[in-house]
Amino acid sequence: MKRRSFLQLLAVIAAKSQAKTTNFIGGEHKLNQRSIVVDTSKSPKSKLKAIPINAVKLQDHFWLPRLVDLQEITLPTQYQIMEETGRIDNFRYAAGKTKNSQGLRFLAPDSDVYKWVEAAAWSLAVKPDPKVYKLMNLVVDEIASAQDEDGYIHTFFTFDRKKERWTNLRDMHELYCAGHLFQAAVAHHRVTGEDKLLKVATRFADLIDKVFGWGKKEVTDGHPEVEMALIELYRETGERRYLELAKFFLDVRGHGRVGGSHYIQDHKPFRELEEITGHAVRALYLNAGAADLYAETGDETLMVALEKMWKNLTERRIYITGGCGARYEGEAFGRDYELPNERAYAETCAAIANILWQWRMFLLTGEIRFIDVLERSLFNGALSGIGLDGKSYFYVNPLADRGYHRRQPYFECACCPPNIARLLPMIPSFLYALSDDAIFVNLYAESLANLNFKGVPVTIVQRGNYPWDGEMELQVQSEKAAKFALKIRIPQWCSKATVSFDGQAIEVEGGNYAVVERDWSQGGKVQLSLEVTAKYVLCHPFVESSAGRVAIERGPLVYCLEQVDNPEVDVWCVGVKTERPLEAFEKVIVNLPVIALEGEGVGFDLKEWDGVLYRPLRQMEKRFRKIRFRAVPYFSWANRDAGAMTVWLMRL
Amino acid sequence: MKRRSFLQLLAVIAAKSQAKTTNFIGGEHKLNQRSIVVDTSKSPKSKLKAIPINAVKLQDHFWLPRLVDLQEITLPTQYQIMEETGRIDNFRYAAGKTKNSQGLRFLAPDSDVYKWVEAAAWSLAVKPDPKVYKLMNLVVDEIASAQDEDGYIHTFFTFDRKKERWTNLRDMHELYCAGHLFQAAVAHHRVTGEDKLLKVATRFADLIDKVFGWGKKEVTDGHPEVEMALIELYRETGERRYLELAKFFLDVRGHGRVGGSHYIQDHKPFRELEEITGHAVRALYLNAGAADLYAETGDETLMVALEKMWKNLTERRIYITGGCGARYEGEAFGRDYELPNERAYAETCAAIANILWQWRMFLLTGEIRFIDVLERSLFNGALSGIGLDGKSYFYVNPLADRGYHRRQPYFECACCPPNIARLLPMIPSFLYALSDDAIFVNLYAESLANLNFKGVPVTIVQRGNYPWDGEMELQVQSEKAAKFALKIRIPQWCSKATVSFDGQAIEVEGGNYAVVERDWSQGGKVQLSLEVTAKYVLCHPFVESSAGRVAIERGPLVYCLEQVDNPEVDVWCVGVKTERPLEAFEKVIVNLPVIALEGEGVGFDLKEWDGVLYRPLRQMEKRFRKIRFRAVPYFSWANRDAGAMTVWLMRL
Repeated sequence: MKRRSFLQLLAVIAAKSQAKTTNFIGGEHKLNQRSIVVDTSKSPKSKLKAIPINAVKLQDHFWLPRLVDLQEITLPTQYQIMEETGRIDNFRYAAGKTKNSQGLRFLAPDSDVYKWVEAAAWSLAVKPDPKVYKLMNLVVDEIASAQDEDGYIHTFFTFDRKKERWTNLRDMHELYCAGHLFQAAVAHHRVTGEDKLLKVATRFADLIDKVFGWGKKEVTDGHPEVEMALIELYRETGERRYLELAKFFLDVRGHGRVGGSHYIQDHKPFRELEEITGHAVRALYLNAGAADLYAETGDETLMVALEKMWKNLTERRIYITGGCGARYEGEAFGRDYELPNERAYAETCAAIANILWQWRMFLLTGEIRFIDVLERSLFNGALSGIGLDGKSYFYVNPLADRGYHRRQPYFECACCPPNIARLLPMIPSFLYALSDDAIFVNLYAESLANLNFKGVPVTIVQRGNYPWDGEMELQVQSEKAAKFALKIRIPQWCSKATVSFDGQAIEVEGGNYAVVERDWSQGGKVQLSLEVTAKYVLCHPFVESSAGRVAIERGPLVYCLEQVDNPEVDVWCVGVKTERPLEAFEKVIVNLPVIALEGEGVGFDLKEWDGVLYRPLRQMEKRFRKIRFRAVPYFSWANRDAGAMTVWLMRL
Repeated sequence: MKRRSFLQLLAVIAAKSQAKTTNFIGGEHKLNQRSIVVDTSKSPKSKLKAIPINAVKLQDHFWLPRLVDLQEITLPTQYQIMEETGRIDNFRYAAGKTKNSQGLRFLAPDSDVYKWVEAAAWSLAVKPDPKVYKLMNLVVDEIASAQDEDGYIHTFFTFDRKKERWTNLRDMHELYCAGHLFQAAVAHHRVTGEDKLLKVATRFADLIDKVFGWGKKEVTDGHPEVEMALIELYRETGERRYLELAKFFLDVRGHGRVGGSHYIQDHKPFRELEEITGHAVRALYLNAGAADLYAETGDETLMVALEKMWKNLTERRIYITGGCGARYEGEAFGRDYELPNERAYAETCAAIANILWQWRMFLLTGEIRFIDVLERSLFNGALSGIGLDGKSYFYVNPLADRGYHRRQPYFECACCPPNIARLLPMIPSFLYALSDDAIFVNLYAESLANLNFKGVPVTIVQRGNYPWDGEMELQVQSEKAAKFALKIRIPQWCSKATVSFDGQAIEVEGGNYAVVERDWSQGGKVQLSLEVTAKYVLCHPFVESSAGRVAIERGPLVYCLEQVDNPEVDVWCVGVKTERPLEAFEKVIVNLPVIALEGEGVGFDLKEWDGVLYRPLRQMEKRFRKIRFRAVPYFSWANRDAGAMTVWLMRL
């Protein structure tokens, strides 16, 4: 491959993105200004308020191309697959429009459709797009007409199967799908201002409220999700019954009424949980719901459990990629320090669920640690879930592979593809958050933000080439007098950061906020210098699968060795020389310019191990040869030729 | 502890053992000369014939003390526990002698009793002992009187439960227990010449033959064992129906008739098996049975499957300790290269089962590789199953532990303790084997052997201090003219060996036989010098749990770091400097003089990892301190203060 200048390449990408962005502006529909993903603006216990997606206009080379592809490629291809697999037909069938029920499956295909609508809606807050808008509303129409007269909606339990409704809460995902419907409806309403889907949602929520509750059906769903969805529905409609219902669904759990297993977090009441266990997406969605409930109720017993689980997750059960869920069996969290690499589950949805939970914890507390975890999951374990083509996906995100794990256009099980699609357009809203006296700068990306600090318009321009480079410029300007602190996140991964303002430079340690407080009506420019250098990382010695090995990080990105970049040696047969420096170089992976790394080590032929499981070190050392290896960002792997990959490297 | 001279200590042990041995000689009962564990003397397809246990008189410091303890401590304490737990009462209950049925359990407590009888019988071939003999025959009497008139015997299915006999072959272990009865009976008969238990066995075998077979009950037991037992019963009685029955039990398996799961090797016909899967003891017992069947029938399709499974086991699924079974779940083999250390299952019984299988494969072929694997399992994964006190046991043998895994006096589940008890007295018979033209020297231990080479008495005296030292002297003398090859095993672990004979010294590579052929009536002395030095060992890079880490071996022994020997650093926080030598030193563990090792490395405080899962290497390196660590033989671990242990060590 002929090497082009990195900046040249980035400029090409940017121009392409910009051109497309321009085309979208001025679509036929009006944009509502309340495109807030988690609306804590009236939540009594939330220290921070989230900003709307459309308050931030991305202009960067990392996320913007993804968001362009989202509307150009991801949403259309996902729609097509939903048609091909009968997921939309299921709604037509339920509405009596077709006799074809081939798409029906007992699990949760409806949720794919809802997540897709949510993704489409949020994407319109990023950029108006008439085609996406039209398609989204066609799907909304199909959903609406599938609703029963009593408000029930789940395409599997129609006609003859009506009598089976609510009979197997543990496995049938009726409330789980309801939750995704509610989230889609809230997104649709917030972005478009239209209430068609919101009405569907509230009719169903009202039915659920009639059926479930203390003295009514005292049981909940095997798959958490409805809790956070109901609270957002409460926030959007003001209907307090939905909040109460969410509380009921949390309180009724943990008494063995849905099977009693760890797998579905029914083994203990939520407030007694100390470890994060069971199915990872379930556990993290439940925690997100509990965080929302805390935001509204201030029930401290919820926070106690959430903090214990956060500690357990971050200190013992999360992958370096921010991936969650060690076990194939049950798509579940493992024991403490059980973090296998090749057999990692680390479902894309679990990384997304973790982001949704961390974001809520951050809004509740304003504590930087939650964004540190969010950023890790976002740039690595979640982003790896979607291919650079914008239309191929990972359900499972292992940290080592022999070349068999490849991206797929969709999965039989309703899941990750529309989930990553709904996550991507949320990203602009993660960049900032507001408190009573501060604007929090959480994530970095070249962008223009139009914020509203207590009624005063504030613009923040970010310039820089994050995450490839740590030099960021923040230009802040309030329209009129407004004193507030700019709380600039110095990421925990950053060992050294310099913040320059007004001719003064201060050093700040990673994991802290650099605070610049003043009246911003005069404007101000903050120069941020985060040390982005490649480094080797060790894991806790109890993590058997990786103990004594090293991973590579650079900025927020975790790196891996892919076979395609290392023709001279099997990447599983590399031992690094950690005393030698890692050198950065520019590279294009498919269509994406990245900073790749080159390092030094020894390697051996895999053939040396033919028919042998254990060999004397001295014997092997004679067969070591000096090599140079190349590493690429983990999120970008498996976009080229199939081959071995590994995150954790031996030291030989 | 005051350090005494190693040789002094060994001398004390030896004197003690010798004294006891002398006391035993001249017991009240006669010893049969046919104490052969696997009697292939008439098996058409067996290249080798096993020798009787009592042909070898151990005089060494490693095994002999174990065999002394076996009769002094192990067998009596196990008997006591069998009484306390009602295992013997079960037989009395079945015989109508008592109404007490507290000991009854649905699984296989009967098999513990049978295994104990087998252990006692073989032990009498090592050393006559009137107390053991008397106790054994008392137990035999209890067994005999529990037999039903039709020959049935399994204490759970008595009285009201008679009608449930043979109704749940998958789970109820009726044929498994029968197998252990047959093995006990064969051992009892071979050693004592008495036929009381053999009659019980044949009556039951005759009943089983009436009930099971093509056109009769076409099903088998969920737990293999009866196959090899029936073939030994056939060898002992000459009754060909037992051989046919063993063949039937093998052929009927693998067609889903006992559940169809991998777990019980019922997913595929035996001859189609390519990987070793499922419950480890079941899989290895089945293979031992199939090897016996091959010995008698020469059915090559059996050998094809056995060879494939052997390759799969030894190249991908066995621990460095010779332990078998990676998974807690199902006590089972895992996938290829799935060899977790802390969660290793590596059941003591599975290592024993592996020894039983490897021994049979060796007898069939005369190939050294089977003894190499046998020796690894024997000195490490099996021997670790019994404490140095001779009365505490491991069911599970992990390769890493945090100090929670401790030896127990017995297990609720019938299993390992009497299995290790029956293995130990077999060891003398493993030292040699005979072919038409050679005597194979398999294992080393100071001893006197009286062999019979085609009717000519041959004595072999072994002198040396194996496994601590690799200098062995073999003095061979035939009573009259006898030309044969002495095939001296150079263990695969040995990188360099010198064999000196008749003033000539040759170097032989590990994994080969040194062959000395001549007429031995003149006598001859072979000087064997095996390089026994401590070395670091790597594992295949696909073994995620240990890749890039090193283990320590010295001779046939695998070493581990125990916390009790390393007060200055948590043994899980040690990184070794493999370029520095490992120094041997003498040490006594409880009552056992061993060669321990000391090496150099770096260590860090576990506290450095409080609340952190991943840390930059550079940051940690500042906290490394130089340390010296001490390692002890793996088999000897967990006999002193509880604490962390690890076999695989980081390199930092």
